[in-house]
Amino acid sequence: AIGIPFISLLIYSMLTEDVTEFDAPAIAEIDKAIKQQSQIDESAPMRLRMEKLIKDHQKKLTEELSRIDGKEFRTDTWTRPSGGGGTSCILQDGNVFEKAGVNVSVVYGKLPPAAVQSMRANHKAFVDTTFDSLNFFAAGLSVVLHPHNPMAPTVHLNYRYFETSDPKDPLHGKTVWWFGGGTDLTPSYLFPEDCKHFHQTIKNACDKHNIAYYPKFKEWCDKYFYIPHRRETRGVGGIFFDDLDAEILKNSTSSSQNPQEELFFFVTDALSSFLPSYIPILERRKDMLFTPAQKQWQQLRRGRYVEFNLIYDRGTSFGLRTPDARIESILMSLPRTASWAYMDPVSGTVKDPSPTEEASVDGEDKAREKEMMDVLRHPRQWV
Amino acid sequence: AIGIPFISLLIYSMLTEDVTEFDAPAIAEIDKAIKQQSQIDESAPMRLRMEKLIKDHQKKLTEELSRIDGKEFRTDTWTRPSGGGGTSCILQDGNVFEKAGVNVSVVYGKLPPAAVQSMRANHKAFVDTTFDSLNFFAAGLSVVLHPHNPMAPTVHLNYRYFETSDPKDPLHGKTVWWFGGGTDLTPSYLFPEDCKHFHQTIKNACDKHNIAYYPKFKEWCDKYFYIPHRRETRGVGGIFFDDLDAEILKNSTSSSQNPQEELFFFVTDALSSFLPSYIPILERRKDMLFTPAQKQWQQLRRGRYVEFNLIYDRGTSFGLRTPDARIESILMSLPRTASWAYMDPVSGTVKDPSPTEEASVDGEDKAREKEMMDVLRHPRQWV
Repeated sequence: AIGIPFISLLIYSMLTEDVTEFDAPAIAEIDKAIKQQSQIDESAPMRLRMEKLIKDHQKKLTEELSRIDGKEFRTDTWTRPSGGGGTSCILQDGNVFEKAGVNVSVVYGKLPPAAVQSMRANHKAFVDTTFDSLNFFAAGLSVVLHPHNPMAPTVHLNYRYFETSDPKDPLHGKTVWWFGGGTDLTPSYLFPEDCKHFHQTIKNACDKHNIAYYPKFKEWCDKYFYIPHRRETRGVGGIFFDDLDAEILKNSTSSSQNPQEELFFFVTDALSSFLPSYIPILERRKDMLFTPAQKQWQQLRRGRYVEFNLIYDRGTSFGLRTPDARIESILMSLPRTASWAYMDPVSGTVKDPSPTEEASVDGEDKAREKEMMDVLRHPRQWV
Repeated sequence: AIGIPFISLLIYSMLTEDVTEFDAPAIAEIDKAIKQQSQIDESAPMRLRMEKLIKDHQKKLTEELSRIDGKEFRTDTWTRPSGGGGTSCILQDGNVFEKAGVNVSVVYGKLPPAAVQSMRANHKAFVDTTFDSLNFFAAGLSVVLHPHNPMAPTVHLNYRYFETSDPKDPLHGKTVWWFGGGTDLTPSYLFPEDCKHFHQTIKNACDKHNIAYYPKFKEWCDKYFYIPHRRETRGVGGIFFDDLDAEILKNSTSSSQNPQEELFFFVTDALSSFLPSYIPILERRKDMLFTPAQKQWQQLRRGRYVEFNLIYDRGTSFGLRTPDARIESILMSLPRTASWAYMDPVSGTVKDPSPTEEASVDGEDKAREKEMMDVLRHPRQWV
């Protein structure tokens, strides 16, 4: 499926140039040539298979979400001067969604080794840091949906693939690759059946591949989406993983011949489980009646979402500090509206609330809000 | 004015204990004793003079702001288990203010040298890092006022004093001290006369002490309150300085006998200029008519305020990472409400807006919003 002669020509033309200067675009050029010459199938490099997967899902997701909302997504395609680009699909001020973003980015870049390693939780990559910069490829799909109705939860999804090439031989040398991603739910009000459904659907997708995945990635998710200064999680979790490479399959019972392929199939199934995990919840919550006080509570919860994303989220931090990053796409994760209150009687960050404080949180609404906080302070097993 | 015998007793009792363990509380105890024995006058340690100054101003400011708003401040006094505490005065959902915070904190603590140095812009302090922890004293007044009316600007003020004591001899050794602070204005709509008034009032206070201060601290302010990922400043500036110690007076024409005293008087005058710099602006804007669209624009500007404070503000970052910090007091700076829009036609962070984008920003309101953005992207000299 790969246009060998054309690629050889490309490689040849490169060797006549200053390789260290042109190697990153070279990989981009090779990929471009492959895409022009053939369909992307299992013989194509993982970069292109991942790109196709996330683009197919972007199309599927925006179609389905747009059907539910009744409003179309706005689509912006952008390129980075240093290589790569993406497509951001945003639906803002819709009928169901305050803000919904479904973004794809595909980046061919060069970064100092330290920066590439900061992309990894475990800092594996090429630990030899004697070279000045490292070519990397990154492709990811990011979804954040903020519905209007305070009974309908916010949901987030991100699946990504990274590759760094050997700086000494970018075209034929060893490739270091890993997958990352996950999905998590952030309700303002707790509906245990929603949490169970969300977790069960994801667990089923995980179990198809490895029964160790769900418990491991569920715990990772609770740890990752934690707001230390508030001593609470962002939501009711889901799964989260990073640095997923051949290592994870070492102790697996399924002795895989091709770990990269195996993990790609896992990510494919995880992605496919997204709509089934979320849409049934959205359908039963989006038209529920709610009070202005409940909308207010949702706004406070959205404030915490902003705190997590701006202070702790690794992807956001990394993105905002990347030269030429597309800021509007990165910050689509922020809610349309949010609120902060000083010493909110239910969710305020106080160690020992006074008896007066405690007494002021009576009433049915307050009880439901306290129930939500309890779960955020003590993550539960949902399945 | 200092109760010498009692202090000697304290020091003596300390020398019979493990000094390295009890030195930080010792300074707190000494200060407590001084406060019990006498009025704080110019013979008292700078720690106590600064504490008195900011507490007096907290009282004056809350009284004046409460008079204008018609609603009382809520007052919370808190202590840290490791020493010190503070008083937070918050007025929320008032008649004039969405949220107004006037906070004092006075902290006696112990920190690793690296942490103390991160409190300083220039990382001076004790550069000898062979010891495990450093006693520090920090006292500060923080004010953030977010009015309802989009024509009335948000304002921020912070003045602080730090002291670290010689780890080898905390009671009699050399003290390293510095002042920091400033004040800055964040309008949603530009009224040049407001900016001029604000800057002129501050400049007058600076000029009384050193004509080099205003230009230096105005520039520092524009640099500090800059949001790199948005390529814009948080507002129209004011003054900002940090690490202010004897060094700044070296080349000064006024050969000061007592640099610490000199800088304390400067901070005193800067603080006193706050109400005159802001209240006349508030008075003429707080009851202006405005449209829902103008309120919307204010909400977007508030979103940027949140971005700066959560991502870049050194005080906020430091506070959120301090064990036992009072989170609710630190985050009082966040607005009551904020909003984010994808690709806002006026304030969106896009390098080259398309002609369609440009065309969509016609109209008088949009012109005023563009005028505001222009100033945020290209800081001006106001006086």
